Amino acid sequence: MTERRAIPLHRVRIDDPFWTPRQDVIREVTLDLQHDILQKSGAIDALKMQWKEGQPNPPHPFWESDVAKWIEAAGYSLTTHPDPELEARVDAVIDIMGKAQQPDGYLNVYYSLVEPGNRWTNLRDKHEMYCAGHLIEAAVAYYEATGKRKFLDIMCRYADYIDSLFGPGEGQRRGYPGHEELELALVKLHRLTGQERYLRLAEYFVNERGAQPHYFDIEARERGEDPAAFRFSDYDYNQSHLPIREQETADGHSVRAMYLYSGAADIALATGDETLLPALQRLWHNTTRRRMYVTGGIGSTPRGERFTYDYDLPNMTAYTETCASIGLAFWAQRMLLLDLNGDYADVLELALYNGIISGGSLDGTRFFYSNPLEVDRRGWESARPSVRRELPAAERQGWFRCACCPPNLARFVASLGTYAYAEEQGTAYVHLYLGSTAELDLGGQKITLTQEANYPWDPTVRLKVDPAAPGRFTVALRVPAWCRAPRLTVNGADVAMAAIVERGYARLERDWQAGDVVELTLPMTTERLYPHPRIIADSGRVALRRGPVVFCLEQVDNIADLNALLLPRDADLTTAWDEDLLGGVYTVAADGYADDADAWDDVLYRTEAPQRRPVPIKAVPYFAWGNRKPGSMLVWVREGGSEG
Amino acid sequence: MTERRAIPLHRVRIDDPFWTPRQDVIREVTLDLQHDILQKSGAIDALKMQWKEGQPNPPHPFWESDVAKWIEAAGYSLTTHPDPELEARVDAVIDIMGKAQQPDGYLNVYYSLVEPGNRWTNLRDKHEMYCAGHLIEAAVAYYEATGKRKFLDIMCRYADYIDSLFGPGEGQRRGYPGHEELELALVKLHRLTGQERYLRLAEYFVNERGAQPHYFDIEARERGEDPAAFRFSDYDYNQSHLPIREQETADGHSVRAMYLYSGAADIALATGDETLLPALQRLWHNTTRRRMYVTGGIGSTPRGERFTYDYDLPNMTAYTETCASIGLAFWAQRMLLLDLNGDYADVLELALYNGIISGGSLDGTRFFYSNPLEVDRRGWESARPSVRRELPAAERQGWFRCACCPPNLARFVASLGTYAYAEEQGTAYVHLYLGSTAELDLGGQKITLTQEANYPWDPTVRLKVDPAAPGRFTVALRVPAWCRAPRLTVNGADVAMAAIVERGYARLERDWQAGDVVELTLPMTTERLYPHPRIIADSGRVALRRGPVVFCLEQVDNIADLNALLLPRDADLTTAWDEDLLGGVYTVAADGYADDADAWDDVLYRTEAPQRRPVPIKAVPYFAWGNRKPGSMLVWVREGGSEG
Repeated sequence: MTERRAIPLHRVRIDDPFWTPRQDVIREVTLDLQHDILQKSGAIDALKMQWKEGQPNPPHPFWESDVAKWIEAAGYSLTTHPDPELEARVDAVIDIMGKAQQPDGYLNVYYSLVEPGNRWTNLRDKHEMYCAGHLIEAAVAYYEATGKRKFLDIMCRYADYIDSLFGPGEGQRRGYPGHEELELALVKLHRLTGQERYLRLAEYFVNERGAQPHYFDIEARERGEDPAAFRFSDYDYNQSHLPIREQETADGHSVRAMYLYSGAADIALATGDETLLPALQRLWHNTTRRRMYVTGGIGSTPRGERFTYDYDLPNMTAYTETCASIGLAFWAQRMLLLDLNGDYADVLELALYNGIISGGSLDGTRFFYSNPLEVDRRGWESARPSVRRELPAAERQGWFRCACCPPNLARFVASLGTYAYAEEQGTAYVHLYLGSTAELDLGGQKITLTQEANYPWDPTVRLKVDPAAPGRFTVALRVPAWCRAPRLTVNGADVAMAAIVERGYARLERDWQAGDVVELTLPMTTERLYPHPRIIADSGRVALRRGPVVFCLEQVDNIADLNALLLPRDADLTTAWDEDLLGGVYTVAADGYADDADAWDDVLYRTEAPQRRPVPIKAVPYFAWGNRKPGSMLVWVREGGSEG
Repeated sequence: MTERRAIPLHRVRIDDPFWTPRQDVIREVTLDLQHDILQKSGAIDALKMQWKEGQPNPPHPFWESDVAKWIEAAGYSLTTHPDPELEARVDAVIDIMGKAQQPDGYLNVYYSLVEPGNRWTNLRDKHEMYCAGHLIEAAVAYYEATGKRKFLDIMCRYADYIDSLFGPGEGQRRGYPGHEELELALVKLHRLTGQERYLRLAEYFVNERGAQPHYFDIEARERGEDPAAFRFSDYDYNQSHLPIREQETADGHSVRAMYLYSGAADIALATGDETLLPALQRLWHNTTRRRMYVTGGIGSTPRGERFTYDYDLPNMTAYTETCASIGLAFWAQRMLLLDLNGDYADVLELALYNGIISGGSLDGTRFFYSNPLEVDRRGWESARPSVRRELPAAERQGWFRCACCPPNLARFVASLGTYAYAEEQGTAYVHLYLGSTAELDLGGQKITLTQEANYPWDPTVRLKVDPAAPGRFTVALRVPAWCRAPRLTVNGADVAMAAIVERGYARLERDWQAGDVVELTLPMTTERLYPHPRIIADSGRVALRRGPVVFCLEQVDNIADLNALLLPRDADLTTAWDEDLLGGVYTVAADGYADDADAWDDVLYRTEAPQRRPVPIKAVPYFAWGNRKPGSMLVWVREGGSEG
C-alpha cells in the first residue's frame, strides 16, 4: 500500500473523558430514541409497501435516508460495541427493506407507491439518488460491522440497476443526483466490493454534473415544465451551474456542496485523477477563508439553506446546518488523504468541537437543524407564530419534518474514531487528539498507538507507540494552527519542532520500539478572536476561543440583553474548570459593562449615549449552549474600551 | 365647523427651495414617465377589455391600482398647476376606464377577463377591493382638481355595487378587503359626495375585520381550499387576526397595516366613535416606539413585507417599503386630526425627509421599493444572481413588477401641501415648515398664512399671518421634539415658549391683524443618535441627524468597507453646505478610523485586533443616497473610543 487512508473504524477504540460519554449517549439514548421515532412516524413501516392512495400519512420522499442514517449509525456503534439487541432491531428493519425493493432492483417507497410511473423523472428536485446513497452507506457500514450480506446485496442490486440506467453509454440517461450523496456512497461500495463499475458510475456523476446541454433542463422539459421555473432559479443551488472543475466559489445548498466535494475528493483519491485537486483546493479556500463561521458552521441563509457570498456571515440568521458542518468534516477527512495539510484537520477539529456537536443536546434527545451564532430569545418569544417560523429555533427539537440532522449526528459521532488517524506506507498520522487505541498498518509495519488525552481541555497528549516489531517509520502529529508554542518530547527528551513540522504535522521519523512515548503539549490560552474587517455582522465584536473550543454567552449566565454587553479590550479573561456545569466544561469570566436598557427612555433613538453599568460576563463552550433554561445566546460579543 | 381638518390641497400653494424642485420633477418628469410605462406595460390598454385567453401579457390583478395612483397624482398636480395636456391624457385614460366597467358596476379587468366567474371569491389574497380603493381615491382627486364628474360617477357606481354586496345585511357577504385601502377611499368618497352609505361601508369593513367566524376561512372553504394552507400562515399578515380594537402590536404587511390604521382613524374622525382611539394610540406607540427605523421606515423583513417584533430592526434586510413610510404619513396626518400631538407630526416629518423621499431619485426617474439602511454593494456585486435576488436592491429601478411605490411617491409629493396645515374653529395649525401660502378657514375667520422657510436646512421660519379681518384666534406651531432650544417671536418680540407649548404645539392665541409676523427659530445641530440597547442591529453604532434629516455614509465619499469605519466618540462633526452636491445638501465630516482590511491576513478570524488607520468620514443626507456612482451605503456607523 502507498495510498494514504483513514483508519477503519474497527481498528480504533475510543476511551476518552470527552468523547466516551458522548458516544455512550448516542448508543444508549439516541439510537433507541431515533428508532422509536422512525417507527412512530411511519418511516420504517412504509418499507412494508402497504400504503394505498387515500390513506393517511403517505410515504415521504426522504424517509429512506433517515432510516438509512440510523442503520449506518447503528452499524458504527455495533462495530465498536457489539449489541445483539440493537443488531436484531436493525435486522428487522433490513428484513422489511427487502420488501420495498422492486423486481428490477429499484428501491424507493415514495415513487413506488405515491407516484408510480414517475421514477427518475425529477432528479433535480426529488431525492431518489440521495436516498440510494444513504442506503448504500448504511449497507456498507452494517456489513462491515456484522459481516451480514443481506442489506449489502439489496443495495448492490439497486446500485447495479442505477448503473444500468445512468451514464454516458448508448441508451443511458445522462442524469445525476439533484442532491449529491450517491457519489461518495458508490465509492464506499466500490472499496468494499472491489467492483469498478460503482467507481465509474460515481466518477461519471461527478464529471457529468453541470455539462451542457443541461440534464435538468432536458428533464424539466420532458416533464412539461419550463426549466426557468426552477424554484431556486439557478443551478448553483445544487452545484450544477458549472462542471466542478470550473467552479470558483462554494455556492448553493451547503450540505449538497459538501457531499459533492467529498465525493469528488473520493474520485480523485480512487482514480488518481489530478485534475480535480485544483478545484477542490480552490473551493476549500473559498469555503473556509471566506464563507465559514467561527464555529465551523457553513450556510449563511435559510433561503435555500445555502452559501451566499464572501464575508456574508450574519449571526442570527445563520443557517449553519448540523449536516453541513458534518459534511465539512467528511470533506476535510478526504482532503487530508488527498492533499495532506494541517489546515484541513484544523477545520475538521473546529467543526467537530463547535458546529457539529452543538447540533445535539448533552442528553442525546434533542437536536438543532440550524446552529445560529446568536439567538434573541426574548424577541422569539414576543414574535407572533407567523414571524417566529422565519426565525432560528431558540431550542433544540426532538425531531424535524425534514429529519436529516439527528441521525447524521448519530452516525458521525459513532464513527468518530476513523477521523482521528490515517496510515500510509511508513507513516502514521494523528489528526485528532482523543484517548484511544489504534491499530495501524503502515505497510509491512503494524503498530499500536495508545493515546491518552483530556482534550480539548488539557494541553498534554501522551502517545504510546508500540510497533509489532522495532523499526523505522514516521509518526506525524498534527500541530494545530491555534497553538502558539507547542512542545514535543520523545521518551522525555525535547524535540526541536521547527525542523520537523511540515504542512502542519510534526513528523517524527525514527527507529521506534515498543513502549516509546511521545508527549505533545499544546498550551491552551483563552484568546479573543477578531473578525475580518469585511464581516459586517461581526464588526466591533470578538469571539472567545480556548484551544479548538469557541465560547458563547448564554442568558442564563448573564443579563438578558446579551447585545448590550461590552467586553473591555483590556479585561482579563478568567478561565476556570467547572466540573458540575454542562457535563464538565471550562468557563470564561470577565468584568464587563452593559448599556442599560432599563435606564433608557420609551423611545427607540435618543441623543444621549446609553448609561453603562458594570456587569460580570460569563461564557460557556458554544457546543454546550441550550442545555439549560431556554434563553438568548451570543458568540460575537461587543468589545469596548476600558471605560466599557 | 368644529372638527379639525387638513387643509384642502387647492388652498395651499408651495413655493419652497426644497420642495418646489421636487414637485417640479414629479410634474415635469415623473408623471410623463409613469404614463409611458403604464402605456407600454399594457396597464392602460388592458382597460379596453380586448385581451383574450391565450394572448400574451394578460392583465395583472393590480394594474388598476397603478393607473389609479398615477391619475391621483395627476389630479393633485392639476390642482396646483393646471396643465391642459396632462388633463387630456388623464381624460383619455378615463374614457377607456368606462369600457372596463361592467353593466352592474363592477370594474376589474383581471377578474373580468382572466378569471371570469371568480369575482369576489378570494378577498384574502387578491386585490379587487384594493384596486377599487385606489380608483376611488383617484376619482375623488381628479374631480376635485377639474370638476369633471365622469370618473367619479364610474366609481360611485362601482362603490354602490360593492355596497350592495358586502355588509351585515340580509343576503350580503360579510367580507372585507384582504389588502386594506378601500376603507380610507370610501371615507374620501363620503366626504366628497355626502353619501352616508360610503361611510357606513367603510365603517363596516373596519369593524368586521377579524370577526369570528373568520370570513377568510369561510371564503377559503368555499374555494375548496384548506384555510390553514394560507401562504402567510396567520391572518396577522393582513391584520385580520383580531378585531382592530383588540390589536396590541403593529403586525403583518406594513403597507396594509398603515392603510387600515389610516382608515380606522378616518372612521373615528367621521363617526365620532371613541372606541377606536385607544387601539390607534396603542398601535402608534408600538409602531413608532418599538418597530420604526431611524429613517421613518417600517417593515423589518422582506418575508411578507412585514413588521416582525419589538426592536427587531436589521439594517441590510430592512424592508422599509416606500409605500409603508407614505402610509405612516397618511396615518400621522389623520392622528393629528383625531388626537393632536406633536409626536404624530414629528414622525410624519421624519418619514417625509428620510424614508419617503429616499424612494425616488433626484431626477424623478428611478425608485426604491425597499429603503434599506445598509447596502453592501461589493457583496451584492459578487453574489450570484440566485443570491442577489434575495438581497436589497443596490440601486433604484425604473419600475417594478409590483409597481406600487413609484406612483405612490408621485401622488404623495404632489399632495404635500395638505400635510402642512390644518384648521379648526378658532385655530390654525402649522404641522410642517415649508415655503407656502395657505388659505385657512377657522370658522367665521378666514386667514392667509404665508410661510418663508429654507427647511430642513435653515433654522428660521417666518410666518406672516393675514386675517381677512382683525380678530382673536390661535396659530399653533409645531415645535419638533428634536429641537432643544426653539425660539419664537411675534412682530419681533420674544415669546416665552414654555407657557404656551401644549402637546408639541406653541399656541399663539392673540388678536391678530394683517401683516403680523411670527418667527420660529429651530436651531439645528448635527447630533449623534444612539439606538435603544435592545436594537441588536445597531449595537455600538450611531446615526447622525441634523434637524429632521438623517445622514448616511456612501462609498463614493468614503472607503469601500463602510462597516470598517469608526467614528470616535469625541470626534468633531463638521457640518457644511454644499450647493453643488445632490441638488444642494448639508454634509457632515469627521476624522475617523478604519479597521484595515488590506492589512488583514487571508483568514476570516485571527487573534490580533485589526490595524487601524485614520480616515476621513463624510456623510450625506439619507434621502439623497444612491444618486451618484453605485456603491455601499450605511446609516448606523460604528462608534469608537478616541483611539478609533
